[in-house]
Amino acid sequence: MALVDLALDAPQLLQQIHALGAIGQDPALGGRTRIALSDDEKAGRDQLLRWMHELALEVRIDQVGNIFGILQADEAAAGDAATESGRPLMMGSHIDTVRQAGALDGCYGVLAGLAVLRAFRQAGRRPRRALVVAAFTNEEGVRYQPDMMGSLVHAGGLSVQAALDTVGTDGSRLGDELARIGYAGDMVPGSLVPQAYLELHIEQGPVLEAEGLQIGVVENLQGISWQRVDIQGTANHAGTTPMRLRHDAGYAAAACIAFLREQVAATPPGTTLATTGSLRLAPDLINVIPRQASFTVDLRDPDEQRLRAAEQRLTGFMADLARREGVRIETESLVRFEPVVFDPVLTGRIEAAARRLGLSHRRMTSGAGHDAQMMARICPAAMIFVPSRGGISHNPREHTDEAQLLQGAQVLLEVVQDCLASA
Amino acid sequence: MALVDLALDAPQLLQQIHALGAIGQDPALGGRTRIALSDDEKAGRDQLLRWMHELALEVRIDQVGNIFGILQADEAAAGDAATESGRPLMMGSHIDTVRQAGALDGCYGVLAGLAVLRAFRQAGRRPRRALVVAAFTNEEGVRYQPDMMGSLVHAGGLSVQAALDTVGTDGSRLGDELARIGYAGDMVPGSLVPQAYLELHIEQGPVLEAEGLQIGVVENLQGISWQRVDIQGTANHAGTTPMRLRHDAGYAAAACIAFLREQVAATPPGTTLATTGSLRLAPDLINVIPRQASFTVDLRDPDEQRLRAAEQRLTGFMADLARREGVRIETESLVRFEPVVFDPVLTGRIEAAARRLGLSHRRMTSGAGHDAQMMARICPAAMIFVPSRGGISHNPREHTDEAQLLQGAQVLLEVVQDCLASA
Repeated sequence: MALVDLALDAPQLLQQIHALGAIGQDPALGGRTRIALSDDEKAGRDQLLRWMHELALEVRIDQVGNIFGILQADEAAAGDAATESGRPLMMGSHIDTVRQAGALDGCYGVLAGLAVLRAFRQAGRRPRRALVVAAFTNEEGVRYQPDMMGSLVHAGGLSVQAALDTVGTDGSRLGDELARIGYAGDMVPGSLVPQAYLELHIEQGPVLEAEGLQIGVVENLQGISWQRVDIQGTANHAGTTPMRLRHDAGYAAAACIAFLREQVAATPPGTTLATTGSLRLAPDLINVIPRQASFTVDLRDPDEQRLRAAEQRLTGFMADLARREGVRIETESLVRFEPVVFDPVLTGRIEAAARRLGLSHRRMTSGAGHDAQMMARICPAAMIFVPSRGGISHNPREHTDEAQLLQGAQVLLEVVQDCLASA
Repeated sequence: MALVDLALDAPQLLQQIHALGAIGQDPALGGRTRIALSDDEKAGRDQLLRWMHELALEVRIDQVGNIFGILQADEAAAGDAATESGRPLMMGSHIDTVRQAGALDGCYGVLAGLAVLRAFRQAGRRPRRALVVAAFTNEEGVRYQPDMMGSLVHAGGLSVQAALDTVGTDGSRLGDELARIGYAGDMVPGSLVPQAYLELHIEQGPVLEAEGLQIGVVENLQGISWQRVDIQGTANHAGTTPMRLRHDAGYAAAACIAFLREQVAATPPGTTLATTGSLRLAPDLINVIPRQASFTVDLRDPDEQRLRAAEQRLTGFMADLARREGVRIETESLVRFEPVVFDPVLTGRIEAAARRLGLSHRRMTSGAGHDAQMMARICPAAMIFVPSRGGISHNPREHTDEAQLLQGAQVLLEVVQDCLASA
């Protein structure tokens, strides 16, 4: 239950969100750009470390650059860190950004975590178990793939060496860039196994705003299937080739995209999402039947069976289409994450906290990927969402009202206290 | 009827096709590139002029660089050039090419015309009316738009000044380039009005080959409608935006392309052709719903009413789609030519000539645009086709067997004699 003597320093939290958002700003194009392990992202990391030191946290950096700020437990209450009772309670997210990002994606969760620790510091109290704020390396995956890399390594899903050897879109090696900016730490990733992980984040979607709600209790996270589809047809003259003799790679791509939409229109709302975001034709000339079409398929669903069924329907459609149109279709899986179901005890606590604080809320699914899905592999995890105006994110126009940001942080503080009290 | 003393010099025709095809060759990428008014195209023009002079033709060049080689009529037989009876009979095509072209597109018709005049020279005979071989400027329209420009100016469809002031894709002014290569003549375009115009050309399509036929009697030429379609939607996150809240410009484009195909599949063969050759999305990212889609529509039909109906069906579909998807759709007409019906007397003569020569043939529609469609505005015109292997053109692999090339030239010679005899 909430302890009345812990209070958020609201102005300080908002000021830190503003200050971190000022690093890497792009006056010409708008927003800020702090791509993982760039000079601007190093400046963001340096700022975060100064704030952690102001709170007298124990700061640790692991071999892939994940940053942890630790508020150690009251010694009398603390258990052995190797046992469940001694494990820390972790909050976190990331501070790297896409290009021309908003100020909230990731940063909000890290800084709200600091605000929770500040509440303990300002009250002069120590928690019953250690509290940790984590900022994971390269969540966005703009420069180095895969995304959510730092938390994936932390959860044991990718080796340290593989992460360090990743070559970026600019040809750089991740390990070299990490050393260059001075964030190649010595802690072995994954050595901090939390008792539970909580991530506060903006929704990045329109659901909460559309329903006029203040808090999203995130009970699961969609599975993601990314594919690249390459269709090989035959280039020919648009004015002389009869329709029945064509092998039109562009038409075949359009048929796949239209099929995907029809499939999704037939499934219940809140289930499968299908998107083709990228499509390119060759030779891309007005009077030449396309020889080649390359496009992407982004399928998401909170249910693994449905996600797999959607993949299979597309595969079946493409096999028929290839036969019918006389084209060759090849697919490559780019990303495949199974759906994640968050911990029901934690989501129950988030829901109860929102209710106690008198905040309107709903249970919901996260459409985007988050570090919490990696942490869910090694400990109970859950997420708290606040509304995103217009559902817009990855855009300078990303916005959440200050009152809503503070409500989300209040829920986080409440849930942390609840977890500590119940431990 | 055919006069037995006129014979084609087959080796000379084939040698000239080969020699002209050697100018502007690209050993690295294959084929030859003689873009209108480039240095390589000047070299092609110079070669053509040498051959015209070898035949002691009267060579005239007009103000937009169209080249005419004239074999004057037997003086006793010739009428007044200003009267129908005195007008020349014209054969022609073009010698400019696309990038990495074959050796036949255009060049074949010009050189076969020379071969007809050579038959008269070698027999020591003068025709009953003047015979002209024309090589029109910038038929391909690669560097300067519109295509078929020289014949369009000749037919009075574009002013000389407008043609000379055309700015190319490389920023050059057509008139300056014409002067630079020395082909800005002084003849007023259109002063040579022929009694009839014949164009021999490779089919650039698969019909003759597929049906095992030797000669195409081209009785009409498809109307062409080129449009650019721009769809404006809303970019948003692929993982968080419910399907019903999307304004997906990429899906809308795919729906248009699929609709176009369905429409065309329902019309009889040999009528409407529909192609989307170019399509681009923005921002073109795997996990972002496309904000914008730009694509081209190439519609062709030999019947103007059907062509217009196809345009209107697409317009209607797009209006519904824009409402349904909440996107903005704008179209721009890039090219619009009505269908051309060639002269029935001339096509009848072509058919009769093929029959007399024992060559298999069919009446057919030209899918591609040709100078003959411009000439049809000012005189009776028709075309003769020979097969294209695999239907391939605008490609180094463009090919017609030598025997087929000679058969086509033989038909041209036969029709010319028939026209002279009937005049």
